[in-house]
Amino acid sequence: MQRPSPVQECNVLYLEDLRIGDRFFTETHALDEQQIVAFARQYDPQPFHIDDNAAQATLFGGLAASGWHTAAITMRLLVTSQSQFAGGFIGAGVELEWPTPTRPGDILQVESEIVDVAPSRTRADRGMVTLSAQTRNQRGEIVQRMRARLVVLSRAGAFRATQGG
Amino acid sequence: MQRPSPVQECNVLYLEDLRIGDRFFTETHALDEQQIVAFARQYDPQPFHIDDNAAQATLFGGLAASGWHTAAITMRLLVTSQSQFAGGFIGAGVELEWPTPTRPGDILQVESEIVDVAPSRTRADRGMVTLSAQTRNQRGEIVQRMRARLVVLSRAGAFRATQGG
Repeated sequence: MQRPSPVQECNVLYLEDLRIGDRFFTETHALDEQQIVAFARQYDPQPFHIDDNAAQATLFGGLAASGWHTAAITMRLLVTSQSQFAGGFIGAGVELEWPTPTRPGDILQVESEIVDVAPSRTRADRGMVTLSAQTRNQRGEIVQRMRARLVVLSRAGAFRATQGG
Repeated sequence: MQRPSPVQECNVLYLEDLRIGDRFFTETHALDEQQIVAFARQYDPQPFHIDDNAAQATLFGGLAASGWHTAAITMRLLVTSQSQFAGGFIGAGVELEWPTPTRPGDILQVESEIVDVAPSRTRADRGMVTLSAQTRNQRGEIVQRMRARLVVLSRAGAFRATQGG
């Protein structure tokens, strides 16, 4: 929502550019009750995500964002950040945990770190990168932990795509 | 979108009702290009999710839904299905894979199976249920595999909630 087109003006990182331990920070996203309820009405219409009164009597003790909303905002922040992986942010698989509920008024930011880089054994044009991403609120509490296996193109792969091969 | 309120007319399943091997099927959701692009513009604005032409030159070879969109639709189907877990569908953690892209025109349905039921050792009011859910398209291809650890209330927990205790 901050930027009309996220693919402009970014640094493209190829497989060869990535090292274990590399860290990235995104911009922030301010979440409010309206966004939480709008997402949940469409995708996760449970009382604790759509009605603050009803949410009081649940395990959440008040309105909380759907975990899928937190995941979607995290993705938005990652794909609109300045550093982008070659070929895009393509997840082969992810693991998610939501240790703290995301609440109205939270300001979210994602810190990610590369924890593995594995060139493909059979295809020179790509590899698998494992990213550990933590989404934090304005108090530094972790609202989501994600571990994602991503397909990232090598420079050879990008060249081949340009050549149509 | 099929039902105005998903919490009406459903069977509530408590921890004690659940057995390993129990299986559930949701209704279906028909996905089109407009939905795919609308979700992606907001949460995952990468070329292969928002522009069919641009998508041709990518690893996807054509427009594909964001994996987070597939996950969100899966959640919608699960929380609006007839059988509901006591306390709601509250994920402590999930693992996701997207073995086949979700495409415009796909009709999605979720089949889930309970693979573990673990009463809490310290709290009589709840337990942890592990659910394996496969989201399939109209050709039976698996577009998402999910393994979710869910907090489910026991009858004791539901009683306590009613009493405000």
